[in-house]
Amino acid sequence: MDATLGEIAMTLGGQLSDPTASERRVRAIRSLASAGPEDLSFFRDPKYLAAAKASKAAAIICDVAFEGAPCPLVVVEDAGLASSYLLSIERDVQSPPPPAGVHPAAVVDPTAQLGENVSVAPLAVIEAGARIGAGSRIGAHAFVGRNAILGDECTLHPGSMVLHSAVVGARCTLWPYAVIGRDGFGFLQREGKHHRVPQVGGVIVGDDVELGAWSSIDRGAIDPTIVGSGTKIDSHCHVAHNCKLGENVILVGYARMGGSAVIGNNAILAQDGAVGERRTVGDGGIVASGAKVLYEDVKPGEIVLGCPSRPALLQKRIEVLWARLPELFNDVRDLKKKLAKLAGA
Amino acid sequence: MDATLGEIAMTLGGQLSDPTASERRVRAIRSLASAGPEDLSFFRDPKYLAAAKASKAAAIICDVAFEGAPCPLVVVEDAGLASSYLLSIERDVQSPPPPAGVHPAAVVDPTAQLGENVSVAPLAVIEAGARIGAGSRIGAHAFVGRNAILGDECTLHPGSMVLHSAVVGARCTLWPYAVIGRDGFGFLQREGKHHRVPQVGGVIVGDDVELGAWSSIDRGAIDPTIVGSGTKIDSHCHVAHNCKLGENVILVGYARMGGSAVIGNNAILAQDGAVGERRTVGDGGIVASGAKVLYEDVKPGEIVLGCPSRPALLQKRIEVLWARLPELFNDVRDLKKKLAKLAGA
Amino acid sequence: MDATLGEIAMTLGGQLSDPTASERRVRAIRSLASAGPEDLSFFRDPKYLAAAKASKAAAIICDVAFEGAPCPLVVVEDAGLASSYLLSIERDVQSPPPPAGVHPAAVVDPTAQLGENVSVAPLAVIEAGARIGAGSRIGAHAFVGRNAILGDECTLHPGSMVLHSAVVGARCTLWPYAVIGRDGFGFLQREGKHHRVPQVGGVIVGDDVELGAWSSIDRGAIDPTIVGSGTKIDSHCHVAHNCKLGENVILVGYARMGGSAVIGNNAILAQDGAVGERRTVGDGGIVASGAKVLYEDVKPGEIVLGCPSRPALLQKRIEVLWARLPELFNDVRDLKKKLAKLAGA
Repeated sequence: MDATLGEIAMTLGGQLSDPTASERRVRAIRSLASAGPEDLSFFRDPKYLAAAKASKAAAIICDVAFEGAPCPLVVVEDAGLASSYLLSIERDVQSPPPPAGVHPAAVVDPTAQLGENVSVAPLAVIEAGARIGAGSRIGAHAFVGRNAILGDECTLHPGSMVLHSAVVGARCTLWPYAVIGRDGFGFLQREGKHHRVPQVGGVIVGDDVELGAWSSIDRGAIDPTIVGSGTKIDSHCHVAHNCKLGENVILVGYARMGGSAVIGNNAILAQDGAVGERRTVGDGGIVASGAKVLYEDVKPGEIVLGCPSRPALLQKRIEVLWARLPELFNDVRDLKKKLAKLAGA
Repeated sequence: MDATLGEIAMTLGGQLSDPTASERRVRAIRSLASAGPEDLSFFRDPKYLAAAKASKAAAIICDVAFEGAPCPLVVVEDAGLASSYLLSIERDVQSPPPPAGVHPAAVVDPTAQLGENVSVAPLAVIEAGARIGAGSRIGAHAFVGRNAILGDECTLHPGSMVLHSAVVGARCTLWPYAVIGRDGFGFLQREGKHHRVPQVGGVIVGDDVELGAWSSIDRGAIDPTIVGSGTKIDSHCHVAHNCKLGENVILVGYARMGGSAVIGNNAILAQDGAVGERRTVGDGGIVASGAKVLYEDVKPGEIVLGCPSRPALLQKRIEVLWARLPELFNDVRDLKKKLAKLAGA
Repeated sequence: MDATLGEIAMTLGGQLSDPTASERRVRAIRSLASAGPEDLSFFRDPKYLAAAKASKAAAIICDVAFEGAPCPLVVVEDAGLASSYLLSIERDVQSPPPPAGVHPAAVVDPTAQLGENVSVAPLAVIEAGARIGAGSRIGAHAFVGRNAILGDECTLHPGSMVLHSAVVGARCTLWPYAVIGRDGFGFLQREGKHHRVPQVGGVIVGDDVELGAWSSIDRGAIDPTIVGSGTKIDSHCHVAHNCKLGENVILVGYARMGGSAVIGNNAILAQDGAVGERRTVGDGGIVASGAKVLYEDVKPGEIVLGCPSRPALLQKRIEVLWARLPELFNDVRDLKKKLAKLAGA
């Protein structure tokens, strides 16, 4: 980034609080605490007001002008989205989009169909019959299996995989070593031995889905596994066979499901949250960090906590009482003594 | 799949309940609920009887004919194994076995020994001295290290690895990014610093073992890590250095061990089950979902639950009582008041 | 290994207890229990004294001669470091260091700068502007992104990644599928939808750091994520965006942090230990296996246990009392009955 405050205000459709500063140049976007006189910063959460006032930034992007600002302000409608936009420019400088075309060291089957402006990095593999939508980027060492379908403008980061027959929507992002379409863990037990049940149910992923590093959306056993549009999945997560995830779901790191679990729209599984086989989380339900939904479903909008999970308020109370157990055991011992004395008296 | 019911009954060694339907064609195998008039379905768990009666399938495979069937039945000895067999045919159509031979974009050391009909996909690497058994399939981006030994008919899915000197039996399957033979996490502490202890103990894996995506069987420190035949390991699991796993063990996703843990034959670690360093799980023992075996071993056939783990019945009772703690604290407060009153009276 | 006991004593700067055995040859280093008459073993933990006395090894390396030794001893200053040194020789025989130079099947951008004696294995990718320090080894399928910087003598095992712009010190080791510099999980919520916040803050990793298989050090959102020298991270771990880890920290398998967590020097997160967003672990603090630091920071030197975490002694007491809850509930029911009787009397 190398722009004047005037240019930045214009780009963001914002107002520069001190028009005389419009020619001042900035080169990077930094946090309030670390920004220096050539950096831009941003302020949107009131709890950082003191940090904003103490910032050494050249200028601060914000929603509403605040008193005691230490520098010119760029007042915009949504400081979050505005700074996100500037960060995307800085990201593209750090890591420019690859040129369209297939690198000579990629291995692309002649029957694969690539849309316009697709880029395929070195050592990527695209198998027979795969179809990749326009503008998609296939990273180094990435893998697209036989007859898999990707929508437009998808990004497969290095080492990510879409296995055979999986169907992925537009603008999806797979981080390194994410895998869509692994066979779920299905076996038949016969005389103490475990026999593989081949998984043929497929995977259907909507638009604007993210799948984090080392995370999986397994293919269904017979019917497909389904992930709705706008759902964002962090690293080390596991969506098991025949799960159904709604739209705009959030799975934070290590969140996981058993087979055939159902997660409603806008639900959140916080870090290490787990939902057992065939369990359901209603729309907008929240599984708090480390909570395990094993015995009871989560109602729409409900927040659950603990292992096994319970309604958050009850579990919070239980956790407080755990710390008072030593005292309680003492109290009961005392009561027994006193009562014995009283009864004996 | 494209076959008549008569052909399917013959292939499965079964009986078609309505011989006049033997020319009817089916094209896919689907669940009872989703099967349509060109699909085959199957029924084996009595709890799905209503679904079986309501199914729109062309025919249903089952062990025993049932009343009220909505379509012809194919009655076989074991509906589970029979449908598994048909699914494996459908899987091979979706994702056909690769042709034998080494893809020109694979990198195979000339001293590596490949058995008959081995297939090596593009961009796989096979290092010096490695030996791959007949009929094995090495996927794209897979890696077989120096002097590693694989038995016959193994499948290394894309991106899976068998590192140097590891020994793997016949018919083993590694899913994407599974790794056999990583160095265990061994350090010596000296004056606050951590010094690597090289791990040279090797890994020995039996026949018919599965290792899931991003799962590891680490090499032993000095003596080998051992995994018995028929053991199936799901994704995100960790078998640490010097663990000994018996035969037909099941590790569900995120199951993990500390170093030198011992797991008996037919034992099960459910999702997120953990067994601490040097701890033992006896034959047929079950570590329930989320249970952590930290302080006490698991006896043969025992089921444990909770963190720290306890016998399942005790832990279940404890979990029920947790929810009654608020009531218990109230009761004790009441008792104290009443007793004080009584004593004072 | 193929050396005489005399040569080994000399190499280790140790004393051979029986000089007449100096010509005896040994070929491998094995544990006390498994060593045979051509193997060397070592003894350093007094609890294995019986195993040492019963060992069939050709010779035993130890710090202090012990009575009843079954074979000649090689007495050294530090049996741990001495045997570690011998193991590193055995490891180099099993898996010899690769020759310097770039394999013809690697893809190295002409603007990348490689130091002296760097080795690049087949199918590795090194992007434009990357700089790799002297003596570093880049494994098969490994990836070094645009403008990333690696210090001298780093080892990138097969399939490990250092993404664009990340800065990594000297002598660092990345195990298979470890990733430095993935974008953290940052989104803005607007009208129920999640908008990606590009992460541009970078990653700075010190010297002598290890990052285990499928473990990540995410890049910071705006300011960098920092990992201090000497820190060792096991497999399946997660260092989130903007975390700051001190020096010589240990993270055991599945240890994880939320964003902006701070971990002091020499702290330990045991297996599956978790530290929530913005939480702090003081210098030398220990998060025990499975403990989740969610609501309170960990003081320097403190040991915490449980979920939610508490001081270890309190939590241990709570865990013991859990098992006595059935008894406690009975006691209180009894007390209520007796008191009612007494009050009624």
